[in-house]
Amino acid sequence: MQLPTFTDILAAHELIKPYIHRTPVLTSQSINKLMGCELFFKCENFQKVGAFKFRGATNAVYSLSDAEAAAGVGTHSSGNHAAALALAARMRGIQSYIVMPSNAPEVKKIAVAGYGANITFCEPTLQAREQTLQRLADELGLTIVHPYNNFRVISGQGTASVELFEEVHGLEVVICPVGGGGLLSGTAISARSISPGCRVIAGEPKAADDAFRSFRDGYIHPSIQPQTIADGLLTSLGELNFEIIRQNVDEILTASEESIVAAMRMIWERMKIIIEPSSAVPLATIMENRDKFTGLRIGIILSGGNVELTKLPF
Amino acid sequence: MQLPTFTDILAAHELIKPYIHRTPVLTSQSINKLMGCELFFKCENFQKVGAFKFRGATNAVYSLSDAEAAAGVGTHSSGNHAAALALAARMRGIQSYIVMPSNAPEVKKIAVAGYGANITFCEPTLQAREQTLQRLADELGLTIVHPYNNFRVISGQGTASVELFEEVHGLEVVICPVGGGGLLSGTAISARSISPGCRVIAGEPKAADDAFRSFRDGYIHPSIQPQTIADGLLTSLGELNFEIIRQNVDEILTASEESIVAAMRMIWERMKIIIEPSSAVPLATIMENRDKFTGLRIGIILSGGNVELTKLPF
Repeated sequence: MQLPTFTDILAAHELIKPYIHRTPVLTSQSINKLMGCELFFKCENFQKVGAFKFRGATNAVYSLSDAEAAAGVGTHSSGNHAAALALAARMRGIQSYIVMPSNAPEVKKIAVAGYGANITFCEPTLQAREQTLQRLADELGLTIVHPYNNFRVISGQGTASVELFEEVHGLEVVICPVGGGGLLSGTAISARSISPGCRVIAGEPKAADDAFRSFRDGYIHPSIQPQTIADGLLTSLGELNFEIIRQNVDEILTASEESIVAAMRMIWERMKIIIEPSSAVPLATIMENRDKFTGLRIGIILSGGNVELTKLPF
Repeated sequence: MQLPTFTDILAAHELIKPYIHRTPVLTSQSINKLMGCELFFKCENFQKVGAFKFRGATNAVYSLSDAEAAAGVGTHSSGNHAAALALAARMRGIQSYIVMPSNAPEVKKIAVAGYGANITFCEPTLQAREQTLQRLADELGLTIVHPYNNFRVISGQGTASVELFEEVHGLEVVICPVGGGGLLSGTAISARSISPGCRVIAGEPKAADDAFRSFRDGYIHPSIQPQTIADGLLTSLGELNFEIIRQNVDEILTASEESIVAAMRMIWERMKIIIEPSSAVPLATIMENRDKFTGLRIGIILSGGNVELTKLPF
């Protein structure tokens, strides 16, 4: 199993810089006061397609040889990775094929279609997604870009925290959400190299705590139809991701649905920015573990901002 | 009638710089594409208290002599100006007295109370507000800081566009919303001095078009209980404001409630930022007058971001 290193992340950053937004790092005095610590929010909700996923997808697409690229790329995704791969492919001028579950949020279906992807809908199970995608790949010769269990994708996701550490010095903790582990594994590699003393923590919904249990038990627990508002964090850990997380992550904390909604609302109301529920999970874990974070300088990666405005939890 | 000049605005900017946020100017490729022009959004929704009103209030509070300041400041306001004056007063360490209509949005009442103001509620009419405030001022000797019909407040509001023009060159149009006219009059003075060729346009809800009619007819039409979602734009023009607007504004355009909601939603979804309905009015007028703006570089002042998340129009 070949794992990406910090060198791969730096190379990814050079490759994707012309295509991604360098997103801002925002702070909120009122949230700092409420939480008793100093928070630095890396706003990947402002990234292209509204999520950090554009970093990994762009690295994967622009790493292809011309011959590989000509056949196109494909993936299955519940949304943000699909939009990201579709846009990255369109920017390079190649075809993308997206397998989406039939129950994906409407706003994400529209976004993916709007980026010019070829969409195939399937049953909302991991098995159905994988089989449908494999069939397409066999037929068309396309390169499958897995949403998180992929060397190039992990390298791309690690670039968000490269920018965060460039901009904010002296971070004592960095926290991001964990679903499949793409963002977390990339973040962990970057943090370990840039700032070995900085603790790397993941936030996960209590209602979808497969990563927490996997990290504790030393093997991957599958994520079986979890029910959480954080719809970007439903999947199981990938193998590459788990190996990196085992080696480089300090702790996985969980948060209740109630805390996730409260954290989301706090960020909307105090910072006037729109984040999706998955992005609120790190702040929710801080809310539930205040003592652990008192007085610390903490980087939080806000993973995305794609929500259906007609279905808010407030 | 002494009107502020650009020199007063520059002096205000120097005075308030240590206390205000320098808000970012954001752009959205997807909104530009949809609208057929190039838009630069000055994000006063990220200003302290969530609105541009903090600029004028801070200028008014910090312009007071120590003796004046000791007696405190007072105002009547439907919300953002109240929060702004309360915070500015607290920052200077003086008392503030706020007269609010009993039907003000809950989120604004909470904000004002949170900034340590002394609040008096009254009937939701302009007359009741003014009488209640005058009684307090007579009793306590406080300085009344009118939300918009005030020299120092206008000078402060004009600083938002000073920053906008500093950051974005070659603007052909600047648009802001108009209610009482504080932001519009300040913006107009700045724009005329910095970039005489730049058109100054105001956006107003069709359902509260008193400024449109006043501008057309040459005298102030009162705003009589208008019903619009843009709850920051309910009041009539002030006399100082109207005089400045007559001299320096090129055009007032109106927008339907439907367009205001559509524009608000477009900014939320595409830019991932939270704006209040009043802030969406300029984009709504562009939506309704696309031909007038095609291909132009346009500055829009997003006036604020205070909304009750449980009462969204989507």
